Amino acid sequence: MSDLRVGIDAIRSAAALLEGVSTVTPVESSNALSAIVGAPAYLKCENLQRSGSFKIRGAYVRMARLSDEEKARGVVAASAGNHAQGVALAARLLGIRAVVYMPTDAALPKVAATRDYGAEVRLVRTGAILIHPFDHEDIVAGQATVALEILEQVPDVRTVVVPVGGGGLAAGIVAALAELAPHVRVVGVQAARASGFPVSLAAGVPTKVAPMSTMADGIAVSTPGDVPFEIIRDVGTEIRTVSEEDLSRALLFVAERAKLVVEPAGVAGVAALMAHPEDFEGPVVAVLSGGNIDPLVLLRVVRHGLAAAGRYLQVRVRLVDRPGALAGLLQDLARHGGNIMHVDHVRTGVDLAIDEVEVTMQVETKGPEHCAALLDHLRHEGYNLAEH
Amino acid sequence: MSDLRVGIDAIRSAAALLEGVSTVTPVESSNALSAIVGAPAYLKCENLQRSGSFKIRGAYVRMARLSDEEKARGVVAASAGNHAQGVALAARLLGIRAVVYMPTDAALPKVAATRDYGAEVRLVRTGAILIHPFDHEDIVAGQATVALEILEQVPDVRTVVVPVGGGGLAAGIVAALAELAPHVRVVGVQAARASGFPVSLAAGVPTKVAPMSTMADGIAVSTPGDVPFEIIRDVGTEIRTVSEEDLSRALLFVAERAKLVVEPAGVAGVAALMAHPEDFEGPVVAVLSGGNIDPLVLLRVVRHGLAAAGRYLQVRVRLVDRPGALAGLLQDLARHGGNIMHVDHVRTGVDLAIDEVEVTMQVETKGPEHCAALLDHLRHEGYNLAEH
Repeated sequence: MSDLRVGIDAIRSAAALLEGVSTVTPVESSNALSAIVGAPAYLKCENLQRSGSFKIRGAYVRMARLSDEEKARGVVAASAGNHAQGVALAARLLGIRAVVYMPTDAALPKVAATRDYGAEVRLVRTGAILIHPFDHEDIVAGQATVALEILEQVPDVRTVVVPVGGGGLAAGIVAALAELAPHVRVVGVQAARASGFPVSLAAGVPTKVAPMSTMADGIAVSTPGDVPFEIIRDVGTEIRTVSEEDLSRALLFVAERAKLVVEPAGVAGVAALMAHPEDFEGPVVAVLSGGNIDPLVLLRVVRHGLAAAGRYLQVRVRLVDRPGALAGLLQDLARHGGNIMHVDHVRTGVDLAIDEVEVTMQVETKGPEHCAALLDHLRHEGYNLAEH
Repeated sequence: MSDLRVGIDAIRSAAALLEGVSTVTPVESSNALSAIVGAPAYLKCENLQRSGSFKIRGAYVRMARLSDEEKARGVVAASAGNHAQGVALAARLLGIRAVVYMPTDAALPKVAATRDYGAEVRLVRTGAILIHPFDHEDIVAGQATVALEILEQVPDVRTVVVPVGGGGLAAGIVAALAELAPHVRVVGVQAARASGFPVSLAAGVPTKVAPMSTMADGIAVSTPGDVPFEIIRDVGTEIRTVSEEDLSRALLFVAERAKLVVEPAGVAGVAALMAHPEDFEGPVVAVLSGGNIDPLVLLRVVRHGLAAAGRYLQVRVRLVDRPGALAGLLQDLARHGGNIMHVDHVRTGVDLAIDEVEVTMQVETKGPEHCAALLDHLRHEGYNLAEH
């Protein structure tokens, strides 16, 4: 029996509260990911959870445990993302009045999804209960129910890989497994550009970092929560980081091979698996924490992922400005299996000679080797390639 | 007891063959789709099936029932899509040699996924067994197992909506339900630009149409299969058609709201629901037949879907060529909540006056009303809008 701040009794009672509320999300086995890891690999699909992410679990448990007096005062949350939707749904189910504050520059679809809620911050005046997105025992206990489901669905699991922002989900999983299956290794994964945990673990206390912009906005948290940090520190859970390229490649992989729409934060675990598959003992379960992504962001990330996977070549070529020069270039590319997606042909530029034109092309390729071969071929034919 | 060409015994024995082979794919309830239909609505996720579509069911049943002598001869299939992958996986599981012929202009990822197979058509010489994608009783019986799962998973289902190409999946579902749940209505859906069934049903026999290009390549079949046609005709199953806009809107909807990657053919049923929600009694199950989509096609279809849903405005504006004109236009748009995605600024064109420039813009909007309001506003400010 461990003596973590969130114990197994709290987690089991959270699971009872969530019965009929949150979905027991499917665990999908992924042949493609298993081939990469060299061991059975599974995806725990919290992107298919009600409200589009695991956040409904913690929000509901936290709010269900409010006193009647507190419930009457209503709740308030500040979030532009998954927590907003989790609190909003939990409030509707519990008949609690909720106000969710969103920044005015939040993505239009997210604003639309919560447009019934106000946008002005007036926390001090309302007296409503603040539902923190991760820093509360009930939140952690709620998120921990993901681990109970994983143990049911993949009883022989050896490794669980999970995205980490403030740490609520990871700490919940760590707390549950510390008690029920201490032989299971948990690896938390942050975006390298917003990774408060490594420095905090080194310092021994939650430490604020200045997060840089990352596509994984769902886990871009500057300071670990006190409650989750304590659990993750005391158990000694390993936290890794992944690059933006790791994230976009993983998102593309999950969309193309597992047919699931996951937000960039939600694929952090898969990204860590793909970056260092040899580090993980199977069976592995990667938690896909959420799927709420603006379609326009999805377009950008998929393009980024195609480029990161070497399947989308962007190249600039200088040509002598004579009839047929562009046609010749395109024929050369086609003959070597490059599929032209987009061409820009520019005749005037500060660094172009008077008889030069510059062509920027996006080319679909078969993969990194094909990319390199295409570039080699163009150089061999004497084309003047600018940096791309 | 109906006397259809594929009976319930054949379907039950197909289900037994498929145990441990095909996945019992999840049925996801969709709040967003339920709100549109005004009744409980579910998605049967064959996009999460092994090989990425339902095709493994029919292919495996067909091939498992070959004689030992036939198995030794190997099998051959011609397909650029889901059937290729279904046959390839079934062959591997059954230890049968398979050759899959793909056209040389097939999408690169699909070629890569089956690159172990030859590309030259030499059916006559090999003596291998041709595995037809839909026109065989065993194929239909295999696909029918989808209906058995639906009856288990949504016992009170009233309507099943299913994409139709050659008709194998739809006929299987019709055959199973005709026997087990004749009160359930099945609606088959084809892409309007490749719809052989309506004309064939009118003629009473399978009739070839010249399919136009459609994003739903998975169901772009010119002639219904004899076996599926007979079943669909004899039961009197209704076949509807959907437009390209219906398809792209549905694909976007399923990606954004249900977090599932589905190929255009796979959302035909959802597209029909969204086009005429009042025509369908709930609970409704829409079968998502497959998820094999080239990421580059996904990008195009999502953009098309955003435009079809009125969330992505493409507009051309003529400006007098003076400093600040473009800046003013962009400020006007921003002030009214339009989010600029892309700007092209063209100074020379055959139909442009010497002091005119033309600006093409892609603008993210909040929806159709916002689109219309933005256009009204620009006209009101005196901007010269070209057709878009």
